Amino acid sequence: MEVAGTIEAVRTSVKAARRNGKRIGLVPTMGALHVGHVSLIERAIEQCDFVVVSIFVNPTQFGPGEDFAKYPRPVEADLEICANAGVDLVFNPSPEVMYATESLTWIRVERLTELLCGVSRPGHFRGVTTVCAKLFNIVLPDVAYFGQKDAQQAIVIKRMAADLNMPLEIVVCPTVREPDGLAVSSRNKYLSEQQRKEAAKIYKSLRKCKEMSKAGVTDAKEIIAAMREILEQIAGGEIEYVSVVDSETLEKVDEIKGKVLVAVAIKLGLARLIDNIPV
Amino acid sequence: MEVAGTIEAVRTSVKAARRNGKRIGLVPTMGALHVGHVSLIERAIEQCDFVVVSIFVNPTQFGPGEDFAKYPRPVEADLEICANAGVDLVFNPSPEVMYATESLTWIRVERLTELLCGVSRPGHFRGVTTVCAKLFNIVLPDVAYFGQKDAQQAIVIKRMAADLNMPLEIVVCPTVREPDGLAVSSRNKYLSEQQRKEAAKIYKSLRKCKEMSKAGVTDAKEIIAAMREILEQIAGGEIEYVSVVDSETLEKVDEIKGKVLVAVAIKLGLARLIDNIPV
Repeated sequence: MEVAGTIEAVRTSVKAARRNGKRIGLVPTMGALHVGHVSLIERAIEQCDFVVVSIFVNPTQFGPGEDFAKYPRPVEADLEICANAGVDLVFNPSPEVMYATESLTWIRVERLTELLCGVSRPGHFRGVTTVCAKLFNIVLPDVAYFGQKDAQQAIVIKRMAADLNMPLEIVVCPTVREPDGLAVSSRNKYLSEQQRKEAAKIYKSLRKCKEMSKAGVTDAKEIIAAMREILEQIAGGEIEYVSVVDSETLEKVDEIKGKVLVAVAIKLGLARLIDNIPV
Repeated sequence: MEVAGTIEAVRTSVKAARRNGKRIGLVPTMGALHVGHVSLIERAIEQCDFVVVSIFVNPTQFGPGEDFAKYPRPVEADLEICANAGVDLVFNPSPEVMYATESLTWIRVERLTELLCGVSRPGHFRGVTTVCAKLFNIVLPDVAYFGQKDAQQAIVIKRMAADLNMPLEIVVCPTVREPDGLAVSSRNKYLSEQQRKEAAKIYKSLRKCKEMSKAGVTDAKEIIAAMREILEQIAGGEIEYVSVVDSETLEKVDEIKGKVLVAVAIKLGLARLIDNIPV
């Protein structure tokens, strides 16, 4: 496995792979790799011949007061995970490499980024789309892999890629969960033992939603109320949103019909936890 | 010469050329091709093995009340010019092809787009950068060619490409002028015979600037005053700006030293004319 710190090194390796007719897959990450990331890497290895994992804690997607400084950066462990998974190339740039020019250029996806997490994290998605475009331009992958756990991110990136005619496919892989249902996330590390136990109620609320929907309930208000009842039992939790939205436009819907996304964001201790299920 | 109306056709042809080791050049235009465009095409043919010209009057870079509807679209003549010049592929998409998805995604280059022409044309550069990014993603050229006449546009595109790590080189070619010095432009067609004669004073003012600079004048105010004196003689003309700016940041400078751009915009009849010289 090659580890590259410069854009030139990445371009050289990918170019050689492409010359050999290989299909290039990219898994963009902020490191602190867990089984969720591994599932993306495994999918990439299944579908591609040359798999690149980028590890970059992108400063421009963190707001003031967010966890940029304390975001975990276990580089050695991450590289071992990549090597064991069969990754071909890890791109692990410094901020100086990724932002060699002071970025005056920003990619904004309107509407989709103003809803759900966009409300409390106003500059977040602009940072995500811009850094992903940079990574796509550096690696030029045929496919890039994102997790369903960050559903809004995946929808925004897909829209950006379509609107800008980016020459790649975006694949979204299912959320990986702990045995008690909590979505695996690098930010789960911020939870105390007690909070970690409480956090399982997030998935409990999503399961409740699924059950109600299966039982024929279509009224979004009724479902949200039942979910809130569960979420309010999370000791120390602060609900940011519980929303039933159209899974393409992310606009709130009153009734569950067609493709709908049920999404939750909760502050719990030092963590901000998000989760969702497509219904 | 191939004429392609779809993105798929362009990608197929360019892919084949690239597989044969050819260097791909792109000249993005809005059609109404003139000797200025031809000079870009000639440079592309000199430096590349496969030259693509895009012809697309991009609606998103025109403001309300601007000349989108009446912008000239002499398609047959344009294709003949391309064929005679030795172009390999013309991409001539409809708005429905270029904007198949309702564009929620916009690329903005801060600061640089808020100065000079950005003041009177607030959404213009956002439309230019976004459509250029789309064209770059469709064609994936090794080099793209722009004219010095639209100096701000070239500077903005260069910055976008650098900030987003776009895998291409931006080449800026010198302004082509009529015998009396007027910069060649598709919009010169909007001028009456009398206005056309008057318009030569724009270049006269730029020459004056160059003379003064050669004679050792470095005070921007003094130079601007002398230029305005000439420009004010344009019958029916309305000066939008006469500016001496840093040729990278486009910020106004008080003194000519280092690389400076002297830029002018004038409304004359139905036309808005711009011109500049690097000093």
